[in-house]
Amino acid sequence: MSRIAVIIDELFEDSEYTEPVKAFKENGHQIIHVGLETGKTVTGKKEQTPVVIDRDLDSVSADEFDALLIPGGFSPDKLRANEKAVLFTKAFVEKEKPVFSICHGPQLLITADVLKGRKITGWTSIIQDIKNAGAEFIDREVVEDKNIISSRNPGDLPAFIAASLAKLK
Amino acid sequence: MSRIAVIIDELFEDSEYTEPVKAFKENGHQIIHVGLETGKTVTGKKEQTPVVIDRDLDSVSADEFDALLIPGGFSPDKLRANEKAVLFTKAFVEKEKPVFSICHGPQLLITADVLKGRKITGWTSIIQDIKNAGAEFIDREVVEDKNIISSRNPGDLPAFIAASLAKLK
Repeated sequence: MSRIAVIIDELFEDSEYTEPVKAFKENGHQIIHVGLETGKTVTGKKEQTPVVIDRDLDSVSADEFDALLIPGGFSPDKLRANEKAVLFTKAFVEKEKPVFSICHGPQLLITADVLKGRKITGWTSIIQDIKNAGAEFIDREVVEDKNIISSRNPGDLPAFIAASLAKLK
Repeated sequence: MSRIAVIIDELFEDSEYTEPVKAFKENGHQIIHVGLETGKTVTGKKEQTPVVIDRDLDSVSADEFDALLIPGGFSPDKLRANEKAVLFTKAFVEKEKPVFSICHGPQLLITADVLKGRKITGWTSIIQDIKNAGAEFIDREVVEDKNIISSRNPGDLPAFIAASLAKLK
């Protein structure tokens, strides 16, 4: 069983949260929602899925978790403006813990400055940002580069979930 | 009198559209809304300000206009995924026509690959993207670098509008 942190804020892409989390839970893993304010409910941008933040960024450390999920939508744009969210994300990459990034997820990794020389995919609008960050953008449903697993959009979810589950103990 | 193109899509930051446009009109300038689909109404993310698209990107050329306004919010993220929106924006910079960019506006300029060596400001979340694009990020209410005038957020609107108006004939 792994303890998986989901870093999340308002306007996340609903299915990029709900589907991986459902699969992780069904496989016996534990989900902890990490965000800007403990107890706050954040909502998805299409279906208004409610998510209650379990732990805020002031009190968490990557050491408490085995992996990190970064759902897409506009949530990563909001989180990357917060230095603690950026440092929390950076720690997972540097400690070589699995990081599952989909859609706009790489925005957090770009601000964390951990993509130089890495292979990654993501949403169309951020392709230039990914390249400018020194990463190699790959247009494929799932890209695995050591501890970083990434996908482009909700259509890639089956491949994203399968690759992510395979990475968990 | 100048003809000003406003490139805009869903979830724009209301005040970053309404306030400059009000000032431009009051000063006798003409506003043309350019977007993905002529006749479609796009709405702001906070106050749901409705904006009807006058011209779609298939039928416009930068040659028809004297200046470009890029309001922020999530509108630039949506537009930069469209190649014609990117080329339209790029043409204004290359033809040295005034470009007024606020908040997430630089995202379009990054995908257009026109920021190398330029001084610019923008919203906190995209600072790393601006730097990675080869630009110099300046944390100031308004930054003027030749034909590009930029501001960070709605709080900068008075300075942004004053600098933009001064650039128009």
